[in-house]
Amino acid sequence: VGSDNATVTAVGEHGLIDLIRSLVPPQPPWVLIGIGDDAAVLETDRNRLDVITCDSLFEGVHVDRRLSSAADIGHKALAVNLSDLAAMGAAPRAALLSLALPPEYRFSEVRELVTALVALAARHKVALVGGNVTRSTGPVVVDVTVMGSIHRRRILTRAAARPGDELYVSGSIGAAAAGLEWLRGGAGEERAEPLMAEMLRTAVDRYRRPEPRVRLGLLLGRQRVATACIDLSDGLADAVCQLTRASGVGASLEADAIPVDPGAARWFASRGREPVGAALTGGEDYELLFAVPRSRRGRLRGVERHLAGLAVTRIGVVTPGGPVRLRRNGTEESLPRGYEHFKE
Amino acid sequence: VGSDNATVTAVGEHGLIDLIRSLVPPQPPWVLIGIGDDAAVLETDRNRLDVITCDSLFEGVHVDRRLSSAADIGHKALAVNLSDLAAMGAAPRAALLSLALPPEYRFSEVRELVTALVALAARHKVALVGGNVTRSTGPVVVDVTVMGSIHRRRILTRAAARPGDELYVSGSIGAAAAGLEWLRGGAGEERAEPLMAEMLRTAVDRYRRPEPRVRLGLLLGRQRVATACIDLSDGLADAVCQLTRASGVGASLEADAIPVDPGAARWFASRGREPVGAALTGGEDYELLFAVPRSRRGRLRGVERHLAGLAVTRIGVVTPGGPVRLRRNGTEESLPRGYEHFKE
Repeated sequence: VGSDNATVTAVGEHGLIDLIRSLVPPQPPWVLIGIGDDAAVLETDRNRLDVITCDSLFEGVHVDRRLSSAADIGHKALAVNLSDLAAMGAAPRAALLSLALPPEYRFSEVRELVTALVALAARHKVALVGGNVTRSTGPVVVDVTVMGSIHRRRILTRAAARPGDELYVSGSIGAAAAGLEWLRGGAGEERAEPLMAEMLRTAVDRYRRPEPRVRLGLLLGRQRVATACIDLSDGLADAVCQLTRASGVGASLEADAIPVDPGAARWFASRGREPVGAALTGGEDYELLFAVPRSRRGRLRGVERHLAGLAVTRIGVVTPGGPVRLRRNGTEESLPRGYEHFKE
Repeated sequence: VGSDNATVTAVGEHGLIDLIRSLVPPQPPWVLIGIGDDAAVLETDRNRLDVITCDSLFEGVHVDRRLSSAADIGHKALAVNLSDLAAMGAAPRAALLSLALPPEYRFSEVRELVTALVALAARHKVALVGGNVTRSTGPVVVDVTVMGSIHRRRILTRAAARPGDELYVSGSIGAAAAGLEWLRGGAGEERAEPLMAEMLRTAVDRYRRPEPRVRLGLLLGRQRVATACIDLSDGLADAVCQLTRASGVGASLEADAIPVDPGAARWFASRGREPVGAALTGGEDYELLFAVPRSRRGRLRGVERHLAGLAVTRIGVVTPGGPVRLRRNGTEESLPRGYEHFKE
């Protein structure tokens, strides 16, 4: 459609839409109208409810083009939305992509961005069905909407945790924050320490290409394991506060149980910071935090067998009320605050 | 939640979400989970299909804060999406609002923006069910997603116009473009001519607060009047080209039949420009262009009786192929090009 070095200005809106359309695989039969009309038309998923969310990546706020490639941005823009659907226990189905691009952005970058987004979409059986492309006055802004479906009795909200439920988190935390710090610091200083460098490469990858826990969220809802669930977009501390506030409960976390990513822990320690506290407040983990009644521990074990090695760690318990506390060495402290989007 | 003069930075993300939630009327029963969780959950409309679209307003590209108030921006961000759904013949149901705001943006401006959006939503029975708020590095960016529903056999696409169909456009065209030009020119120079000033005030209003033709779109689909339909976001010339290209047909328009807004016509003429050509390429009319088989003229008359005075004007005919032509004084010329988002 255009040469790789051409700018989006030279290619124009219609050329970009043609490019995007060419990168999208054949649409599933339930997409009746896809890219190219005023709106997309989809068959509803029979006997299910619609679930819908949108989230954006704003260059200079959520992404930095010096630290993330166009492909990283495309992947992440979809991943953060899939993570939100996972937190509801929903099966994602369709996505809309809203792109605002500066005049000098390259055709090749658009292709890389959309290719990575479409690749992640394919892995989760999500169809890219529409969106829009426009000029930006400077920052790249990628806004993605994801629609999914869910059975009425399988919805996971933030608001239904009950006292006595145990709190679990998937995977490990802190890696994305450590990876971002490392990237911002110049990303070369650890060359003398190969093990550390290797661990940080993993952390950087977690920052650049978060893996939404779609399967876990689906299983937690479908098998009726969890009472409440939320994703860790703004850090574990923030997620625990939001879930307990929405549920009208409190929580007590065990500092020693919190699965801090080993590379992140070493990174934070090497900077003179306490690893658990740093990991708790570091954002962008995109893991799931969920509450499970003690009586459903067996069901949770069953779910774990289908997670292809993704760890699920018990980190504390829901309490009847009060603030969220962190137990450490026999003492209790209050939880540090998470990331706030307007207070970088 | 915050004082009117407080900035969004001082209020913070959670404060803004609380504000938005407080401005949203009680949700209809089919919204099972609304604002405040990871995603919204909606009952599907029984025996209908989902229709979904998103579109954004980027400050400095689509809106100028010196020319449009926060309320204008909120109204328009939803209106352009409702217009897209109208062009499909769909009934809008739910909206998501994705807001990126510069640090110095005022709490009062957020309230005005959301209040205007919610007011337009209420008039069209649309529920605001979710979204996100984030910091911007400068421009205000408002991205709205609208979902609606439609009967399988009532979908209006761009692609089904047939030779012999007559082309109609709703309302009048050119007013938004004239209003914007006037605003950009300083918006005071016409004070000496009261009639002109009054006409231009109407034009400015059309630019700032477009009225999506939701009811017309619904009726065109429901009564099976139109074979194809598109909205005029980028001007009538662009819409005719897109509709005919998608349908694999051509068209012949009658210049004298094109309903140019009288104020816009006077404005363009006073600037030494030919009014029909200027109106054809002026964007942001948000009227509907649609194709109607001659045999359904009677049905269209029936629809017109339910439009509360909105005019519907026959402007030409679909031809078997070839480019789009404009007939004027017995001669034919080719159609001028419309607005292109990357080539301002």
